[in-house]
Amino acid sequence: MNFPTPEAAESAFYAAFEARSLDAMMAVWSDDNVIACIHPLSAPLNGVAAVAAGWRSMFEAAGQFRIQVELAHEIREAGLVIRIVREYLIVGQETEPRPPILATNVYRRDADGWHMALHHASPLQVGGTPPARMPPVVLH
Amino acid sequence: MNFPTPEAAESAFYAAFEARSLDAMMAVWSDDNVIACIHPLSAPLNGVAAVAAGWRSMFEAAGQFRIQVELAHEIREAGLVIRIVREYLIVGQETEPRPPILATNVYRRDADGWHMALHHASPLQVGGTPPARMPPVVLH
Repeated sequence: MNFPTPEAAESAFYAAFEARSLDAMMAVWSDDNVIACIHPLSAPLNGVAAVAAGWRSMFEAAGQFRIQVELAHEIREAGLVIRIVREYLIVGQETEPRPPILATNVYRRDADGWHMALHHASPLQVGGTPPARMPPVVLH
Repeated sequence: MNFPTPEAAESAFYAAFEARSLDAMMAVWSDDNVIACIHPLSAPLNGVAAVAAGWRSMFEAAGQFRIQVELAHEIREAGLVIRIVREYLIVGQETEPRPPILATNVYRRDADGWHMALHHASPLQVGGTPPARMPPVVLH
C-alpha cells in the first residue's frame, strides 16, 4: 500500500489493528527490516518476520475491540514523523474504554510513500504499581 | 552543549541521569519545545519546562544508582536517529541490576549539534502482570 501522509498510514494501522488483519497490518509497515515493534511490557521485535509474528499471535488471542486514538505530541522532520498517541481500547460489549496505552509511532517516507518504522506501546498505569525506574528511597 | 553525534548525546544523557544533574540533563535536550519525555508508566511531558520539572522531581526523590545501557535497535535518517536501548539500573549497594527498562531515544541534529528530542521509557515487566492491551479472551 502507498500512503501519501503519515496520518494516512496511521489511520490504516489502527484500522488493521481493529480488524485484526495481518495482511492489512503488515501493508502499513516499511518492508526493509529496520522496523521495530514493542508491545506493552514486551521485548522489542526487530525486523519484518518478528514484527509479523508478534501481530499474528496477538490477533489470534484477541476478541473483538475498538480503538480510539488521541494525538498527544508530534515531531516532524523531512523524511520521518513521530506521533505520540493515547490508545483507548473498548473491548467487546464494554461501554467504557480500558486505561489508555501510550504509543510512540514513527513513520518514514520510503520511495513509495509513508510507512510505519517503529511502534513502542506501553501502559500508562498497571494496577497500583508506581513507576519502576526510580525507587523513592535515599540509599547512601 | 554541542554533541557531534547521537552517541555522544546519549552518553551525556545517561551520565547526567546517573549524576542526577538537572543542568547536565537539560543540556542534552533540544531547546526548541517540541521535545517530549515519557517516564515509565507516566503521562507524556511536552516542552522544555515540563521535561525539566519531571527530571527535577525524579532526581530529588532518587538515591544513588548506576545505569548500564545496551543498544537493542537503531533507525538512522539524515537528521534524526532513533535508538532503542535496554536500561539496567543498579541501585545503591545492590550487586544485581533491576529488571530492564526499555527506552526509545530520539536524537535530532540541530544547528549546533545533536540533541535529544524524545525519551519514551517503559518497563519490560511489572510483577507478574501480563500485557495489558489484548485480554486473551474471545468476547463475541
